Amino acid sequence: MNLKDVGEFGFIEGFARKYDHLINESDSGIGDDCAILSINETENHVVTADLLIEDVHFLKDKITAKELGHKALAVNLSDIAAMGAKALYSFLSIGIPPNTPMEYLEEFMESYYQLSNKYQCPLMGGDTTKSVDKLVINVTVVGRVLKIDTHLRSMAENGDLVCVTGNLGDSAGGLKVLLENLEQNPDNMNLVKYHHMPEPQLHEAQFLAPYSGVHAMMDISDGIASDLKHILKASGKSANIHLDKIPCSDLLKDVSAKYDWDLYDLISAGGEDYQLLFTVKQDTFKAINDAFMNQFGKPIYSIGEILDGKEEIQWLENGKPYNKQGNGFDHFK
Amino acid sequence: MNLKDVGEFGFIEGFARKYDHLINESDSGIGDDCAILSINETENHVVTADLLIEDVHFLKDKITAKELGHKALAVNLSDIAAMGAKALYSFLSIGIPPNTPMEYLEEFMESYYQLSNKYQCPLMGGDTTKSVDKLVINVTVVGRVLKIDTHLRSMAENGDLVCVTGNLGDSAGGLKVLLENLEQNPDNMNLVKYHHMPEPQLHEAQFLAPYSGVHAMMDISDGIASDLKHILKASGKSANIHLDKIPCSDLLKDVSAKYDWDLYDLISAGGEDYQLLFTVKQDTFKAINDAFMNQFGKPIYSIGEILDGKEEIQWLENGKPYNKQGNGFDHFK
Repeated sequence: MNLKDVGEFGFIEGFARKYDHLINESDSGIGDDCAILSINETENHVVTADLLIEDVHFLKDKITAKELGHKALAVNLSDIAAMGAKALYSFLSIGIPPNTPMEYLEEFMESYYQLSNKYQCPLMGGDTTKSVDKLVINVTVVGRVLKIDTHLRSMAENGDLVCVTGNLGDSAGGLKVLLENLEQNPDNMNLVKYHHMPEPQLHEAQFLAPYSGVHAMMDISDGIASDLKHILKASGKSANIHLDKIPCSDLLKDVSAKYDWDLYDLISAGGEDYQLLFTVKQDTFKAINDAFMNQFGKPIYSIGEILDGKEEIQWLENGKPYNKQGNGFDHFK
Repeated sequence: MNLKDVGEFGFIEGFARKYDHLINESDSGIGDDCAILSINETENHVVTADLLIEDVHFLKDKITAKELGHKALAVNLSDIAAMGAKALYSFLSIGIPPNTPMEYLEEFMESYYQLSNKYQCPLMGGDTTKSVDKLVINVTVVGRVLKIDTHLRSMAENGDLVCVTGNLGDSAGGLKVLLENLEQNPDNMNLVKYHHMPEPQLHEAQFLAPYSGVHAMMDISDGIASDLKHILKASGKSANIHLDKIPCSDLLKDVSAKYDWDLYDLISAGGEDYQLLFTVKQDTFKAINDAFMNQFGKPIYSIGEILDGKEEIQWLENGKPYNKQGNGFDHFK
């Protein structure tokens, strides 16, 4: 049996339980967006890591060094956001093919720095080494959050509204432009930009985290069809999702119509938008939405409800069942 | 200009300074064995990361999965030891070629677990993903140490004795056995074992750290010829090293004699022994050595002296200058 038969999730889960006796009761390891590590009576550290390998996670002729430097850090900052935490610092390990031009590395590092600086999250260390032929990047980020503001996937409650912070599907559209080698017109390249330069929702998450009406929270990396299932599984709940209420850009609608893409597929199963997915106690939604709008000049979007029942998503359109089978991306399939 | 012209150290140094304004005065990033991060008035977190890439850092047909699982964690625990810290937890990112047998991964993970368990340092997260064709491993370890027990490379003082915790050169001998495809007799394979299964000196470091007579400390990853220069550079000092006082095993002496290896070269410039290299105030050496002997049943070894002067090592044999040019391993040369 090879790893491709087990899948990445099965591989990690299988080994995680062995460490239970070494882990403090107040801490938790594998299973949420970040590991959670108590540092004192009131605060947690949260830690996340992402490994990016050339020709698996990116193609060098499809993404610029600037975009790659941004994205490598952004996807980790998004995991920190998912916990409602502030990003404290990052560690960058980079394996570099010997003939990589210095200009490429400088562009990568400058872009990594710009995003670090934006969120006041300094690079504090890591490792630099040679690689044989593929560029290899591992980023680890440590964040800090008050214990009472730490939001887990397991915190969804019956009757909660399922919410997101912004448009979904743009990144998946951008990926289609790249993979199908579509023409590089402004519309198409704007979608690609969403795919390559996602904005981690750190400020939004830190704003939402202190509200007691905000329950489960995570970031959307694999698409809600896959990511919401993690919340449902951890919380032991079911959910309705209204496909017609999922926010999406006019840009994505236009380009989808032009190429006859399945818009619902892109917004429900397309990943890497890095918006927040969270559940909100129904009678607190209006106050939270008003405050959010006041702070950021944009709303949060209610797209469904948490229900009792089997850990499944019922997809609806205009209130009626929609036959939609969406699946997240599994690297090993 | 390519990275191979700049070298790994130059690459990191060049970008580190940009982050200075984001880093708290009590913290420090790139430049020691670990980044140092103040968590409260009395304690620091220390963090280290190591990236290992197949065919750069290891050859799959030369190291078993068990050895690799041990070494990937051990080299990081050794960096934690270098700070005098206790290891708290690790994060493992692993990129796996698709047809890797599950048995290989299970053996790797079991060995990683055994060492984690020995030092009560649980695996708390990371990332698992596909790789194209090379196995890629990044380990990040977080440790904790009292501020007053934190030992930096910059702490060497005039007149300090330069000390190590044990035999040097065995690992370099093992590497020669592998690279020169020497016969797999018990002696040779024992040297290989030192290369593949190094023991991080965590308990020894935690024992030494509280002594005020212990000044600079680091671990020996590249060989003392290279590693001691980091201490000299950070402390602005010079050093004498007595080649004839560097501890080495009878095994290494025997095998070196058999193959006509340069023993002094192996013990001074051979890396990856992961013993501690530290400086001790001269008049405290005896008390520290006695206590160490009492605790561990083995001595510490004084191999030289810290002096005023240019950041260079004077190599001596029987008290007289020895013409020895040793250099650490630079991945990009």
